[in-house]
Amino acid sequence: MSAPSKVDGSTVSATHSGLLDLRSCPGAGDELYEIIERLFPFCRSITGNGVRQTLAVVGERIPLQIREIPTGTAVFDWTIPKEWNIRDASIKDESGHRVVDFRSSNLHVVNYSVPVRRRMTMDQLRPHLHSLPDRPDWIPYRTSYYNESWGFCLTHKQLESMRDAEYEVYIDSTLEPGALTYAECLLPGEIDEEILLSAHVCHPSLANDNLSGIALLTWLGERLKAVGHRYSYRLIFAPGTIGSITWLARNEDKVHRIRHGLVLACLGDQGGPTYKCSRRGDALVDRAVSHVLTHRFPQASIRRFSPYGYDERQYCSPGFNLPVGLLERSAYGEFPEYHTSGDDLSFITPDALSESLEMVLSILDVIERDQCYRNLNPRCEPQLGKRGLYDVIGGENNQANFQLGMLWVLNQSDGAHSLLDIAELSSMPFEQIATCAGLLADHGLLARVPSQ
Amino acid sequence: MSAPSKVDGSTVSATHSGLLDLRSCPGAGDELYEIIERLFPFCRSITGNGVRQTLAVVGERIPLQIREIPTGTAVFDWTIPKEWNIRDASIKDESGHRVVDFRSSNLHVVNYSVPVRRRMTMDQLRPHLHSLPDRPDWIPYRTSYYNESWGFCLTHKQLESMRDAEYEVYIDSTLEPGALTYAECLLPGEIDEEILLSAHVCHPSLANDNLSGIALLTWLGERLKAVGHRYSYRLIFAPGTIGSITWLARNEDKVHRIRHGLVLACLGDQGGPTYKCSRRGDALVDRAVSHVLTHRFPQASIRRFSPYGYDERQYCSPGFNLPVGLLERSAYGEFPEYHTSGDDLSFITPDALSESLEMVLSILDVIERDQCYRNLNPRCEPQLGKRGLYDVIGGENNQANFQLGMLWVLNQSDGAHSLLDIAELSSMPFEQIATCAGLLADHGLLARVPSQ
Amino acid sequence: MSAPSKVDGSTVSATHSGLLDLRSCPGAGDELYEIIERLFPFCRSITGNGVRQTLAVVGERIPLQIREIPTGTAVFDWTIPKEWNIRDASIKDESGHRVVDFRSSNLHVVNYSVPVRRRMTMDQLRPHLHSLPDRPDWIPYRTSYYNESWGFCLTHKQLESMRDAEYEVYIDSTLEPGALTYAECLLPGEIDEEILLSAHVCHPSLANDNLSGIALLTWLGERLKAVGHRYSYRLIFAPGTIGSITWLARNEDKVHRIRHGLVLACLGDQGGPTYKCSRRGDALVDRAVSHVLTHRFPQASIRRFSPYGYDERQYCSPGFNLPVGLLERSAYGEFPEYHTSGDDLSFITPDALSESLEMVLSILDVIERDQCYRNLNPRCEPQLGKRGLYDVIGGENNQANFQLGMLWVLNQSDGAHSLLDIAELSSMPFEQIATCAGLLADHGLLARVPSQ
Repeated sequence: MSAPSKVDGSTVSATHSGLLDLRSCPGAGDELYEIIERLFPFCRSITGNGVRQTLAVVGERIPLQIREIPTGTAVFDWTIPKEWNIRDASIKDESGHRVVDFRSSNLHVVNYSVPVRRRMTMDQLRPHLHSLPDRPDWIPYRTSYYNESWGFCLTHKQLESMRDAEYEVYIDSTLEPGALTYAECLLPGEIDEEILLSAHVCHPSLANDNLSGIALLTWLGERLKAVGHRYSYRLIFAPGTIGSITWLARNEDKVHRIRHGLVLACLGDQGGPTYKCSRRGDALVDRAVSHVLTHRFPQASIRRFSPYGYDERQYCSPGFNLPVGLLERSAYGEFPEYHTSGDDLSFITPDALSESLEMVLSILDVIERDQCYRNLNPRCEPQLGKRGLYDVIGGENNQANFQLGMLWVLNQSDGAHSLLDIAELSSMPFEQIATCAGLLADHGLLARVPSQ
Repeated sequence: MSAPSKVDGSTVSATHSGLLDLRSCPGAGDELYEIIERLFPFCRSITGNGVRQTLAVVGERIPLQIREIPTGTAVFDWTIPKEWNIRDASIKDESGHRVVDFRSSNLHVVNYSVPVRRRMTMDQLRPHLHSLPDRPDWIPYRTSYYNESWGFCLTHKQLESMRDAEYEVYIDSTLEPGALTYAECLLPGEIDEEILLSAHVCHPSLANDNLSGIALLTWLGERLKAVGHRYSYRLIFAPGTIGSITWLARNEDKVHRIRHGLVLACLGDQGGPTYKCSRRGDALVDRAVSHVLTHRFPQASIRRFSPYGYDERQYCSPGFNLPVGLLERSAYGEFPEYHTSGDDLSFITPDALSESLEMVLSILDVIERDQCYRNLNPRCEPQLGKRGLYDVIGGENNQANFQLGMLWVLNQSDGAHSLLDIAELSSMPFEQIATCAGLLADHGLLARVPSQ
Repeated sequence: MSAPSKVDGSTVSATHSGLLDLRSCPGAGDELYEIIERLFPFCRSITGNGVRQTLAVVGERIPLQIREIPTGTAVFDWTIPKEWNIRDASIKDESGHRVVDFRSSNLHVVNYSVPVRRRMTMDQLRPHLHSLPDRPDWIPYRTSYYNESWGFCLTHKQLESMRDAEYEVYIDSTLEPGALTYAECLLPGEIDEEILLSAHVCHPSLANDNLSGIALLTWLGERLKAVGHRYSYRLIFAPGTIGSITWLARNEDKVHRIRHGLVLACLGDQGGPTYKCSRRGDALVDRAVSHVLTHRFPQASIRRFSPYGYDERQYCSPGFNLPVGLLERSAYGEFPEYHTSGDDLSFITPDALSESLEMVLSILDVIERDQCYRNLNPRCEPQLGKRGLYDVIGGENNQANFQLGMLWVLNQSDGAHSLLDIAELSSMPFEQIATCAGLLADHGLLARVPSQ
């Protein structure tokens, strides 16, 4: 058998993409977990030094272009807000004991709290305190980005132990003109068309919701450089909502290059997987994710687009309508740890991260390799036997599946059905169909149809 | 917040239509019931004075144009039949006792019976007697419009009590050249396009099948005058089949104005609701009814068109193919009381009538208010918070639903999706979506797309 | 009532096709069974005298054009192989007893075995022996067409009774230049457009898989001559795969005439029925078979096309993409007797054959009679009563069904819906809808829409 045929001299062929090789990287789950461990302590928000610290760590591994957009800049209907930074915060009781202490968890302060230093009675303080009566051991995560105020989050047990006394409230924060920080990384492929991968970087010490996505994006950015890929990859690390709005507002001229995209979030826990389709609903990314997930995970949940969620809300706004979906394990808002201190390093596992990585790589592999072929022998079946295509792949069951796969590819390769179409029609995995197509192409029985 | 935006200076806006106000009319159910009580005794048929008496009562409330079409007039493939009137009928036993007496129920005479006055043995009489062995207390309802004959309907108990004796049979009817009577009422709206509402007026003392539809049409005709509506409403009160055929034959030039329509029947009982779609199957009226019914009544039955039923058969004949469906509670032929004396005033209730009215008003409201909007801020979400659109509507759950509703409207308002499309996509009630659209339009975030 | 209207002076009308009459041929099942009995003993293969003997028997009943294509002829990607013939074969033990004897079943020799005459030990012989451990009483059916070798098939009991001794192996076959034989029969109809019916003729003594199809084709060829039919029928009797490839290669200029087609196989057992759709999936033949089968057999299995199976693989290759499906009772490969000596004359029954014939005739009848009509009275319903169309067909339930059928035909005959469309919409049997259309056409209410 001759060497695998390259697509237009590409490193990607029907039988092979570099992304598949990455699926077997040893220790990937541990590596992802370590990235998350390192990023966990930073107090991120939609602006400020927590984001900068995070991007600095990511930047050690991949070439990032870091953008600083000044407070007051108009981005579509929005305006870049003041920059928020915090150094310390506490509620002290009369004995000076830090009853609530920012140093033990940055979730204790309502994100974007204005500075405060005041003695208050419990009655005065109570409206500023947030807890979860149903989950008395967890600290909730709260923000107040666009409404200047302050507050503390604490466990319900902490709240119940506070007496009706006087407390000294202290938030050493600043909310001042500054900048919003985001970063992007473009990994050029063989073509200018892009796959967008996006993660939000605005959540403080939460592991699954935020850091899992950041870690996966970082890992992919680092390894994709080393393997061949047809598409260019654009990785975006930006604060939720305002960050993706800012990127879109500054890149309207580039948006047409984005052909496929995924928002990555909540990919470290053991639930799901869950996929929310793009607004288009039948984009290639939607079909590729559905195919990969339903073949591998009987419990996978594929959902229609809805306009509530992460940054796919912006990418899928009607003026852009980009084919960008949201890939998660447990869906946001549907696991009890969501937006609480329960979403910590013990909630995620290296194995789940590694499996999520494998999902993403399999999905990207489908997108990279999907294409239409034309059967060069369209009238009746070609004689596979005389070409040795009857026992080319070992294993008896495999054998029958590969015969059937080749028949499917030959029968449907009329120039109008792509490999993913054929995988769907035959209910066979894309990889098997693509391998069959590669073999047939290598034997001169199929020709790639140039994409228009 | 500014005043609700009017649609083209209309009294109908996304946030409001007069029809919705009508839903809360106090005492509507009782009023409908009283109309039915008053109409119940008349002996209606496809022609004759029973129809005239009925239309006279309706005409006390709404401006009716009453049409008299002479016997012998050709209407498409049909001919207006002779006019039938009846004054009295009985079967007397040898003692002169009225065993069967028209004065106690006009169902006792087969509708359109020719006059007869004869002494007969039971053997001779029996072929002319109709009863329901399975429902021995009910009188069946029978007609013989196009085949001159005569007969009596009676309870099976009555039949069984009749001895093998001689009887005097007496039907004081006339079947002579005259006219077919129907009525229509046009309530002009802001546009010439029409909504057709049609009820049949040919059934004698039957409450649900016939009178419930007449009463609803009358009530609507009376109240619609008082509230704003975009569409013109055409109400038709006509005998079944031959009546709607006559109307269509005489109004071929007006038919193109009918954009939506409903035949109303069997709306006073407590079953259903049931909707039979128009022949088109996906007309706006079909979608509006499905939406309203399935949101409010889990037991609602939405059925495909079939060419058997009431006057939708004629409106949906292939040469017209009007978007006219049939709205009922219990479906004709599927409740035991159907076409028997069991369908009397005790079979219907003011509450059921009132609920049916609410259904109709909600359906008409969807048709009135459905339209496409264009998001004026299509690139990324607009910032709702700075416009105070985050707590504009009270109630915490409501609040979240309204946020979500606004996001749906913004995301889908690309000019191609109407409010009903968005309600269907989001699985949210039309009214909520329409309210959200109204709010967004009031804040300059949406513009109405003129209908083409 | 006037005589049934002919279609374009055809013998086929909406109310009648000659094919329906054939359904009630007495003794058809026995006749089919007798054809199979006579053909059963021949040792068929993809070439050789077994095929010629078979076609000679068929040719006694229908006019066959028999083709002999020389070894070495190129047919698309394939080459006509050497011709195989066999006279005798056996495995003798040391006492000269024929332990395995071709004369008792031609399945005992691997089809296309090269000649052999050799003394061998059991150890040397064993790789050439094939049995079914799970079905110890059945001889498997094996072939080796494109790979020169030899072998014996035997029951597992036979295999187990063979001792570790020396055997004399003898296959008196020839594999030499010759020809591939196939036959076709064209029955001209009123139009040149063709219905293709195809059966494979390459299996030796197997009753259901092979002979049932041949017998049905023969019976149809004999009787279709005698009755009117619109389409021309092309019957093909050819060895599997290489035979249909050969026919297609030699008839590329005729293929465009084939408008509908069925491969017939496995139609004598009592399972199924099973239909595999053509590659198009929604061809008229696919819809006709689905309609007939699902109305008559609740257990019928309608399956999507797949590129594995019988000769539909070739007819449905992408360069031809003919509307040809596969009709079976039990599906190939899914009954235990498949490709074993269990598929003998006791596995099939005259009743099952007769029922299969009825299916095929009903399907062909739908294809023959399906057409669009136009309601000549499209505005409102015509008055059926005045034409005596209210009690034209006896039986009270039938009566109501016929009324409803007429209403469906009138309502949907807008020129765009064919009778099969209407049958599907109304969930009524095609025959009933066609009968209604015929009655309406006879009364001048419908006109046939010429096919384009």
